[in-house]
Amino acid sequence: MTVPHPAPSNFPTIAIVGVGLIGGSIAAAVRKRNLGRVFAVGRDAGKLRLALSLGLADHTTTDIAVAAREADVLIFCTPVDRIAAGVREAVASCRPGTVITDAGSTKGSICRSLSKDLAEGVEFLGSHPLAGSEKQGCEHADANLFVGRVCVLTPVESSTLRARERLAAFWTSLGARVLEMSPEAHDLALAETSHLPHLIAATVASTLAPENRELAATGFRDTTRIASGDPDLWTAIFLANADALLESLKKQETVSHAFREAIEERDASRLRELLVHARESREALMPRQN
Amino acid sequence: MTVPHPAPSNFPTIAIVGVGLIGGSIAAAVRKRNLGRVFAVGRDAGKLRLALSLGLADHTTTDIAVAAREADVLIFCTPVDRIAAGVREAVASCRPGTVITDAGSTKGSICRSLSKDLAEGVEFLGSHPLAGSEKQGCEHADANLFVGRVCVLTPVESSTLRARERLAAFWTSLGARVLEMSPEAHDLALAETSHLPHLIAATVASTLAPENRELAATGFRDTTRIASGDPDLWTAIFLANADALLESLKKQETVSHAFREAIEERDASRLRELLVHARESREALMPRQN
Repeated sequence: MTVPHPAPSNFPTIAIVGVGLIGGSIAAAVRKRNLGRVFAVGRDAGKLRLALSLGLADHTTTDIAVAAREADVLIFCTPVDRIAAGVREAVASCRPGTVITDAGSTKGSICRSLSKDLAEGVEFLGSHPLAGSEKQGCEHADANLFVGRVCVLTPVESSTLRARERLAAFWTSLGARVLEMSPEAHDLALAETSHLPHLIAATVASTLAPENRELAATGFRDTTRIASGDPDLWTAIFLANADALLESLKKQETVSHAFREAIEERDASRLRELLVHARESREALMPRQN
Repeated sequence: MTVPHPAPSNFPTIAIVGVGLIGGSIAAAVRKRNLGRVFAVGRDAGKLRLALSLGLADHTTTDIAVAAREADVLIFCTPVDRIAAGVREAVASCRPGTVITDAGSTKGSICRSLSKDLAEGVEFLGSHPLAGSEKQGCEHADANLFVGRVCVLTPVESSTLRARERLAAFWTSLGARVLEMSPEAHDLALAETSHLPHLIAATVASTLAPENRELAATGFRDTTRIASGDPDLWTAIFLANADALLESLKKQETVSHAFREAIEERDASRLRELLVHARESREALMPRQN
């Protein structure tokens, strides 16, 4: 559901853990809109210096405890397989009332793991801003990356209305349209809309023989663009959402098998039906807002 | 191979049969560059009037014989399943020395069917400009559609050097880079670079459940963009290149199966290998020239 009337943002200090494309873009968006002070946290001092020199942060630190003590919200923009451990490490230093969220592409295992046993008054609530790029690194940060995009919040039973409202207001102030879903519903949906397309784009890219590269035109390039994504990030995403992804892959294989049969049998009317259905499904997508 | 030194274009009158996006763009390109007189041929008088009103043609006719009598080159831009019959109909009215070509996405069956028994002095030589769009209709014609793109010529044993040189010069004058391949090699390559990506994009589009559409972001949109193509055109293309397409689909299924196994077995290192290979294959594509 769409959160109707978010309260105004009230996170004076925003810690961003992992300053890559997404973390950097959140930082850029916050600073451009004067929404608060940005504390960039990372393991790589060189990347933090780069973020500072690009004007993406007010402060940087490699010690998450330093940022956690000052932050009103911590946003984990690390690979999905490092989020839960990172949150647990930060919690010990957080003040009561701190909200912790993330920007990971899978939510089930992260939200289940962090739904309880956090410190008193410290709450984790998952976020997933549906924005990104095959580009990596905060040098590609874009203060408008979230404008017009959906951001999914994934509350669980223990989530407080206050945390939901504060995070909804935060993402809304970055230009996003906020939806709420359960972590499980999110993961099933994202398997279809993101993880399966990534897997399939990778299979098409891998199928291309080197000697045919010269004949790859716009259609091939578009269909396989996301296959350029970071293999480590996507390995973690595929494994964190393995069951839903396998389910989606099974659906795709069923459709692919129907195409194979229609072609083998030179069944033009069946083939046309399959293509008409695909086109209708593609064209039913809402036009992009931006 | 790249045709090294094409002779200057010498087709004073150019008949374009089928004035959709490709035919219209060839017409626009010819007129913008003052390369000759354009005769637009079609079955639909309304579309021909539109082409005329858009300034894409000097003359129009629904009678191919009228255009064939005047043309130095005829370019068939009709769906692939109508090219061979259209050429045979036109041949009877052509003057000796006329070159006939096409812009179809499959070449084997067309070129085999037209490699002999044409009229004395009239020669068919297949072309495939690798340009297009999911948009349809000459209202989207673009005089620069072929600039920087590859155009494949598919000569057979009986093809004359003169026809190859004249057509190479023609496409070059539209901005394309001309390559020569056998019709069979072309079809195998295009199965991988175009027909398989189209089929696979269609399967991914069809897999998306309506309730998840709202969560489809840029990655999904890019991966499935070509699934919006015309179902009739693509039914004809898939059937005209059925064997090569099935072969490519088999290769894709093998890669997909490897992904499935790696995910089922939670084998992170194998999954990463598959993703690294896909990224390398994608990134080995030449950057686009335009």
